[in-house]
Amino acid sequence: MLNNKKKYNVNDNSENNSQQIQFADQKREFNKRPTKIGRRSLSRSISQSSTDSYSSDSSDDETSPRDKQQKNSKGSGDFCVKNIKQAEFGRREIEIAEQEMPALMALRKRAQGEKPLSGAKIVGCTHITAQTAVLIETLGALGAQCRWAACNIYSTLNEVAAALAESGFPVFSWKGESEDDFWWCIDRCVNVEGWQPNMILDDGGDLTHWIYKKYPNMFKKIKGIVEESVTGVHRLYQLSKAGKLCVPAMNVNDSVTKQKFDNLYCCRESILDGLKRTTDMMFGGKQVVVCGYGEVGKGCCAALKAMGSIVYVTEIDPICALQACMDGFRLVKLNEVIRQVDIVITCTGNKNVVTREHLDRMKNGCIVCNMGHSNTEIDVASLRTPELTWERVRSQVDHVIWPDGKRIVLLAEGRLLNLSCSTVPTFVLSITATTQALALIELYNAPEGRYKQDVYLLPKKMDEYVASLHLPTFDAHLTELSDEQAKYLGLNKNGPFKPNYYRY
Amino acid sequence: MLNNKKKYNVNDNSENNSQQIQFADQKREFNKRPTKIGRRSLSRSISQSSTDSYSSDSSDDETSPRDKQQKNSKGSGDFCVKNIKQAEFGRREIEIAEQEMPALMALRKRAQGEKPLSGAKIVGCTHITAQTAVLIETLGALGAQCRWAACNIYSTLNEVAAALAESGFPVFSWKGESEDDFWWCIDRCVNVEGWQPNMILDDGGDLTHWIYKKYPNMFKKIKGIVEESVTGVHRLYQLSKAGKLCVPAMNVNDSVTKQKFDNLYCCRESILDGLKRTTDMMFGGKQVVVCGYGEVGKGCCAALKAMGSIVYVTEIDPICALQACMDGFRLVKLNEVIRQVDIVITCTGNKNVVTREHLDRMKNGCIVCNMGHSNTEIDVASLRTPELTWERVRSQVDHVIWPDGKRIVLLAEGRLLNLSCSTVPTFVLSITATTQALALIELYNAPEGRYKQDVYLLPKKMDEYVASLHLPTFDAHLTELSDEQAKYLGLNKNGPFKPNYYRY
Amino acid sequence: MLNNKKKYNVNDNSENNSQQIQFADQKREFNKRPTKIGRRSLSRSISQSSTDSYSSDSSDDETSPRDKQQKNSKGSGDFCVKNIKQAEFGRREIEIAEQEMPALMALRKRAQGEKPLSGAKIVGCTHITAQTAVLIETLGALGAQCRWAACNIYSTLNEVAAALAESGFPVFSWKGESEDDFWWCIDRCVNVEGWQPNMILDDGGDLTHWIYKKYPNMFKKIKGIVEESVTGVHRLYQLSKAGKLCVPAMNVNDSVTKQKFDNLYCCRESILDGLKRTTDMMFGGKQVVVCGYGEVGKGCCAALKAMGSIVYVTEIDPICALQACMDGFRLVKLNEVIRQVDIVITCTGNKNVVTREHLDRMKNGCIVCNMGHSNTEIDVASLRTPELTWERVRSQVDHVIWPDGKRIVLLAEGRLLNLSCSTVPTFVLSITATTQALALIELYNAPEGRYKQDVYLLPKKMDEYVASLHLPTFDAHLTELSDEQAKYLGLNKNGPFKPNYYRY
Amino acid sequence: MLNNKKKYNVNDNSENNSQQIQFADQKREFNKRPTKIGRRSLSRSISQSSTDSYSSDSSDDETSPRDKQQKNSKGSGDFCVKNIKQAEFGRREIEIAEQEMPALMALRKRAQGEKPLSGAKIVGCTHITAQTAVLIETLGALGAQCRWAACNIYSTLNEVAAALAESGFPVFSWKGESEDDFWWCIDRCVNVEGWQPNMILDDGGDLTHWIYKKYPNMFKKIKGIVEESVTGVHRLYQLSKAGKLCVPAMNVNDSVTKQKFDNLYCCRESILDGLKRTTDMMFGGKQVVVCGYGEVGKGCCAALKAMGSIVYVTEIDPICALQACMDGFRLVKLNEVIRQVDIVITCTGNKNVVTREHLDRMKNGCIVCNMGHSNTEIDVASLRTPELTWERVRSQVDHVIWPDGKRIVLLAEGRLLNLSCSTVPTFVLSITATTQALALIELYNAPEGRYKQDVYLLPKKMDEYVASLHLPTFDAHLTELSDEQAKYLGLNKNGPFKPNYYRY
Repeated sequence: MLNNKKKYNVNDNSENNSQQIQFADQKREFNKRPTKIGRRSLSRSISQSSTDSYSSDSSDDETSPRDKQQKNSKGSGDFCVKNIKQAEFGRREIEIAEQEMPALMALRKRAQGEKPLSGAKIVGCTHITAQTAVLIETLGALGAQCRWAACNIYSTLNEVAAALAESGFPVFSWKGESEDDFWWCIDRCVNVEGWQPNMILDDGGDLTHWIYKKYPNMFKKIKGIVEESVTGVHRLYQLSKAGKLCVPAMNVNDSVTKQKFDNLYCCRESILDGLKRTTDMMFGGKQVVVCGYGEVGKGCCAALKAMGSIVYVTEIDPICALQACMDGFRLVKLNEVIRQVDIVITCTGNKNVVTREHLDRMKNGCIVCNMGHSNTEIDVASLRTPELTWERVRSQVDHVIWPDGKRIVLLAEGRLLNLSCSTVPTFVLSITATTQALALIELYNAPEGRYKQDVYLLPKKMDEYVASLHLPTFDAHLTELSDEQAKYLGLNKNGPFKPNYYRY
Repeated sequence: MLNNKKKYNVNDNSENNSQQIQFADQKREFNKRPTKIGRRSLSRSISQSSTDSYSSDSSDDETSPRDKQQKNSKGSGDFCVKNIKQAEFGRREIEIAEQEMPALMALRKRAQGEKPLSGAKIVGCTHITAQTAVLIETLGALGAQCRWAACNIYSTLNEVAAALAESGFPVFSWKGESEDDFWWCIDRCVNVEGWQPNMILDDGGDLTHWIYKKYPNMFKKIKGIVEESVTGVHRLYQLSKAGKLCVPAMNVNDSVTKQKFDNLYCCRESILDGLKRTTDMMFGGKQVVVCGYGEVGKGCCAALKAMGSIVYVTEIDPICALQACMDGFRLVKLNEVIRQVDIVITCTGNKNVVTREHLDRMKNGCIVCNMGHSNTEIDVASLRTPELTWERVRSQVDHVIWPDGKRIVLLAEGRLLNLSCSTVPTFVLSITATTQALALIELYNAPEGRYKQDVYLLPKKMDEYVASLHLPTFDAHLTELSDEQAKYLGLNKNGPFKPNYYRY
Repeated sequence: MLNNKKKYNVNDNSENNSQQIQFADQKREFNKRPTKIGRRSLSRSISQSSTDSYSSDSSDDETSPRDKQQKNSKGSGDFCVKNIKQAEFGRREIEIAEQEMPALMALRKRAQGEKPLSGAKIVGCTHITAQTAVLIETLGALGAQCRWAACNIYSTLNEVAAALAESGFPVFSWKGESEDDFWWCIDRCVNVEGWQPNMILDDGGDLTHWIYKKYPNMFKKIKGIVEESVTGVHRLYQLSKAGKLCVPAMNVNDSVTKQKFDNLYCCRESILDGLKRTTDMMFGGKQVVVCGYGEVGKGCCAALKAMGSIVYVTEIDPICALQACMDGFRLVKLNEVIRQVDIVITCTGNKNVVTREHLDRMKNGCIVCNMGHSNTEIDVASLRTPELTWERVRSQVDHVIWPDGKRIVLLAEGRLLNLSCSTVPTFVLSITATTQALALIELYNAPEGRYKQDVYLLPKKMDEYVASLHLPTFDAHLTELSDEQAKYLGLNKNGPFKPNYYRY
Repeated sequence: MLNNKKKYNVNDNSENNSQQIQFADQKREFNKRPTKIGRRSLSRSISQSSTDSYSSDSSDDETSPRDKQQKNSKGSGDFCVKNIKQAEFGRREIEIAEQEMPALMALRKRAQGEKPLSGAKIVGCTHITAQTAVLIETLGALGAQCRWAACNIYSTLNEVAAALAESGFPVFSWKGESEDDFWWCIDRCVNVEGWQPNMILDDGGDLTHWIYKKYPNMFKKIKGIVEESVTGVHRLYQLSKAGKLCVPAMNVNDSVTKQKFDNLYCCRESILDGLKRTTDMMFGGKQVVVCGYGEVGKGCCAALKAMGSIVYVTEIDPICALQACMDGFRLVKLNEVIRQVDIVITCTGNKNVVTREHLDRMKNGCIVCNMGHSNTEIDVASLRTPELTWERVRSQVDHVIWPDGKRIVLLAEGRLLNLSCSTVPTFVLSITATTQALALIELYNAPEGRYKQDVYLLPKKMDEYVASLHLPTFDAHLTELSDEQAKYLGLNKNGPFKPNYYRY
């Protein structure tokens, strides 16, 4: 067994140095809460926890989980969580989540006969929440063995981790891990006697990275990687370009259902939610500039327009710009409206979209926030100068005060507003989790040769299947093609229904 | 001086017994937080306070304010607040509110020469919040003397009350008054040696009621009453019908700006806010039934439709029903859709709109809430039966669980969702406060005979003035009639611009 | 019998000269198609007729109807229409209209037992269209005798007039009357031996005016006037103010259903229709300024915003202005945006809202049209100067060309766009016709003293009844109050449901 | 020179019989107006012409153009149009179109130095309208020689063809060609002494087809084909699959700007326009079912929802179905709502979506129309049975009457509503024409090897360029990336800005 106190260093493996991939801008940031996750994957329970008086999380126990000896009720100690005794509370959370994730429950039901993941040994590294637990237990029900670590040092729900451990899943994760803890947990998932993973489910690429560094030989048995995040996908494409990807990988981040739901539909709601919770502002009549008219920007603009705001858009891409025009938004350069707007929202994925110069020109009371990528879009660093006073007026809300008394209201210090200040509906998480499960099934069962050592999008038919599993939530009734119609259209009655380039 | 401990009884004044007005359904409810206030008048600070870690309100001081001897820095002790030392913190809150209430600040500026309330002695009974403080201090700047009590035993912001007291305003109010405290505070406002009020500003009618009961002679000097709430206005109309209203009263509740803003525009935003904060649900694709298509219902329906919900409407009034049709909503009876909807929202002002029978038929997970009046619309009492289990899952959120496991999600125990679970933008409060100020000016300065002992709506010109004071917030530029145009239309260039029956 | 050729002069009645009311701006304009009618009351059939190749209207018969001797199949000659032989074609049009006017058909059914207009002798002066025919025949079915003339010299559908004459209704009207014909027709309706009207149904006030001038004694038997148009209502209020109104009059123009439907809902559709039919423009991305944010302006703005236009609003009334802000429109002065907009729409009811100076500053290709009142809003006369070239490019579309080549696209020469260039859904006409029928019933049956010699709005209960008769069209199901609820609300279960000042 | 009277037969070329491609469902239909064109490419002028009294088209000249000897003012007779004397009128139409096609005009300006089509010999076969003329003359200005025929026997604007001929463009086309004329015209374009085309611009594939059949050797000199229509693209993919495509082809039908504009944005407007012009119906409160939620369906649904209709959607594709849910539409099977809806709209591209059984169950007055593909979606043939009566009530509007009197309102006999009953804004045509021009430039100038004998989508950068050329119409200001930002994003500052799979 490993010495718990051994220091883990992601780059100390000399034999792999040549393989090292540099990620200048995507370096892990261990000091900030929302880290490298592309777009939110947190459950409501997390963002709620800080204010939720019903949480049982107020553990006065300061001992590191790594120093504890815990066993679940069946006597197993193959896990490391904060407190196994919290399992019952976590189980209730999982049960509530199950009610809102009908697609995964449907997969379980269909798997009662054949087990499509029978023989699969999955190592996973994701946020550990009630929704993830539903996914993990579904994978189990489909026949897989799973070992799991957290992809974020803050995001673990300890009770849920306990419940999983109690049910026999080897989980290594707790809220408030150190960086060393983080890698230790990952290592405990993969470095096991008599067990080698044959599938990877990753969110951010750290697990994949670790295996590349430490146990490259494991890839011989691994059938594939399923990756969820923008960053992780980016890393995989880099590996692929460099010719170093040695197994097939599935990019679930860019599947249709995930993109449209996580971005367009979810942001349409969370921009309102995030702004209300932090500022209690009234949207009607407010002038807003939204930087970027991709899916996120489209969602933000649609919502604010519907609430009676006057919305301006900035864009670099002429096609998206023309869409903004046709959707009824004035397309401007940021400078043209910066003096007059009440709210500035960034959704570009770019850096320094809002500069100190812009901030200097904003009017008193202007609200500035980021719905895009990471924390780069607003040049927050430029506000850390002596002549400006910062005043924290609420959690996630700072007033930055100019010498003349002008106040800018900065939300979440420029990090993702919806990750920091609003919650993610379980329904969205359900779509993502279902997509992950199907991607695992596909990669695990694909015949030799279907997938090479490359990065793939989920087959359209699987995307369609994910969607179809979520229709019952809306009591939605799909029409079926008749034989004659299918023939006329040249389609299989069961899909896929669209060419690959179809834009939805 | 009064003995602080004397018990106050609103009905113990034998000489006025014959005048007693019965308010069966509008009886004060001292045990519930949101009480008789018609529609929300609370500031963001209040609803925020329960979760706000920046509040300085954690006073361990258990002494009743009535038992304390406090003096402000000028040596005056003519007030009774929780802790005069909180004044500085309250002052900051007031200053922030001032920034968002430009209309009142504009009134102050215009009053630098003539003081339209010079000589006015106003006794007020409203929620005591930062926004109210801006109103009170504006009345002071306009020349008035003011004494103030709270209209709700829970809603006082102690720091703000302290700041007002420190500035020399005799304020009698604190958070968490007993019923006896409540009446004592009101009495301290009016029962003063050497000072008699000549104007009343009331919110709910309790202050007016108290003077009727205890000091009916005061009305000889009182020039008028300004009343803000549905309930208070109802009481005044009853008094008027009964021939017992002895001064003119201004119903500011039904002024255009208040109605459209408080109801249509504000509810359009607060329904989304209230649902998100309590349930984190996704609106897209959800089936919702909204009971009632008045201004509140119109606001709720518009918002939910814009967010992608499928909305059904119930109505008793065929005109509103036809509007719902033309606005694109299926008009149904509640029974027709109760089995299929995901959310039930009441906005009728009626009672028992949602009955136990309806609740029994709802599907698992259905959310039930009230945006209408009081707490009568949903028959919550019918859910207090032994076979149903109540489980509090969050503040303001109860799961009511049927024997078969079905859960109904009841918000705010059927009380007003937006009062309980969301906040009110300062902008809306600004409109109300400005209307109150103008109503006081109008009544105080009206020539003899303009107003009789009756209940009046604010003159349209004043309504228009309130609106015009809020246009600069939106950088909105009004067009002026030319002389020729004014003549053509038969209008004064300065308004009023519409006949009284105009519907907006 | 009258000499058909006698010249009629509305002002030649010396004995009534003192009563003469001047209507400077509302003088009849006999040379223009859409005349004094406040807002459109024309059916689809009319505006269609110019292009409808299925019309049987191509009468080569040039003889004036006044010079013809015609008899219907029952031998009666008490009518004067273009050609009685067109009756069959007109009957089909009426039958089609009946299908879309279920409310009037419902009234007929309910009148099978008691006839609420039994004994009524109604003289009417309205547009004569299929929809009017359904109204007239409904009045007949309710027990009334009717005589009818047209309120507009161009708007009569000859086939429909023939069908009415064939069915025994004395109709005096044809398309293309001269001014002299116009008054002759009206006279033939009222100046009959052995028959005196006891009710007037007017649209524009000309019939009322004629009786005032010529047969003032008739008012002794007349129980009331029902007036439909803005202009006619204005005349009645002037008479009332001058103390010269000698019977009760019902202003149906300002009833809720008419206002909201004719203005808000109908204009929401007809602005798009009118612009498309005339210009085939694309709305998406276009910049539009809408002058006036009353019901018409609200409808125009909502539609254009929904189609992706960027809409600016001008207003003189601060309340409507604030509504525009809250609804998400930039409130500007016309000058601020006149150089940049693609479309200018007037909806003010005012005059010279768009001046030559504005027109000079518009950009090339700007479209200018009027949805408001009459033809006064755009100063079209100012464009009739030598340096500007007019080029008619389509029916109702003129290019006005500046010396530098700039073209302004002027629609309908500044007259009402929706009257000139789009059609009115039968559904809207049905509401108006039903309101007229109920107003006649109310006035005819009202007990002595209920109505004095004044102008009244339709009782709210009748408004509600009109609305309720149209709900079945939408398969809309109204909820009924329980006894307990009605008591709680203090309402009668059958309405009225709202106070008179309710704004909807 | 060819004998004008020689009969042309598309299949009489024995040497090519083996190459013959069968297009069962896409066979040319010469008897119907809107033929094989996938989605509308007609200008406003065409659909207008039937009712436009300003048209000069009433030619009493019955001589076939093929039998006339005409010369333009420069003495050339290398053209065949209806009447060369109409050139002046056509020129005016072209000039008006130029004003609304700024992108092509911008291309002309940029080509004043270098001529990117210098040496190009383009043979074209498209609708011949004013907008096409602007395209052809732009190609000329870019250096190309052009010869042109019509792709539709009805759609030529004779005046425009005359203007082109007068300007020296060999045009062979007139309104009302016979099938034989059609092929003769095409032949005259390609079969010329001393001139061989090196580029093909086709719309529907007939020109390409003809060259394949008759002059396969021509392909040796041809650098590429640009194809505009769904059908033509389908034919090209079939050729490619069969290994018989012998030059590169550009599919401009599926470029982003065309898809989103022609389908989503254009249909959003034309569904309202088409319904209004044919039925004058009111949209508010109407129940509508839209079959298919692709781009066309999305546009129809958005527009009708915005106008207050209640919209149901049917879909076969679960992803589009889920989008419909999230956008707020009930997803149903057609049978579930067929009895209750007021309007049925097909947008599926499928056949027999609305069957006789559905039609039998519709309620009286139900409107049925097709916005999708061709005329297959509604089984109109099933209505041609003896027991049903057809009554033409307007151009493009039939009442089909059941024995019990029920009437179904069938629009355009089930052909494309927007093609038949509404017009296409020039702005949309401008996007298409610009795309065609850029595709020709790209294929003509591409270095050897960039394009093989396959079907290509327009390079994204060209799509972006088309979009950027249209932004000035909206006074839209694009933001430019800084060097630092471009580097951060890994993008070229001039685009392309998105990966190929981006969905917009």
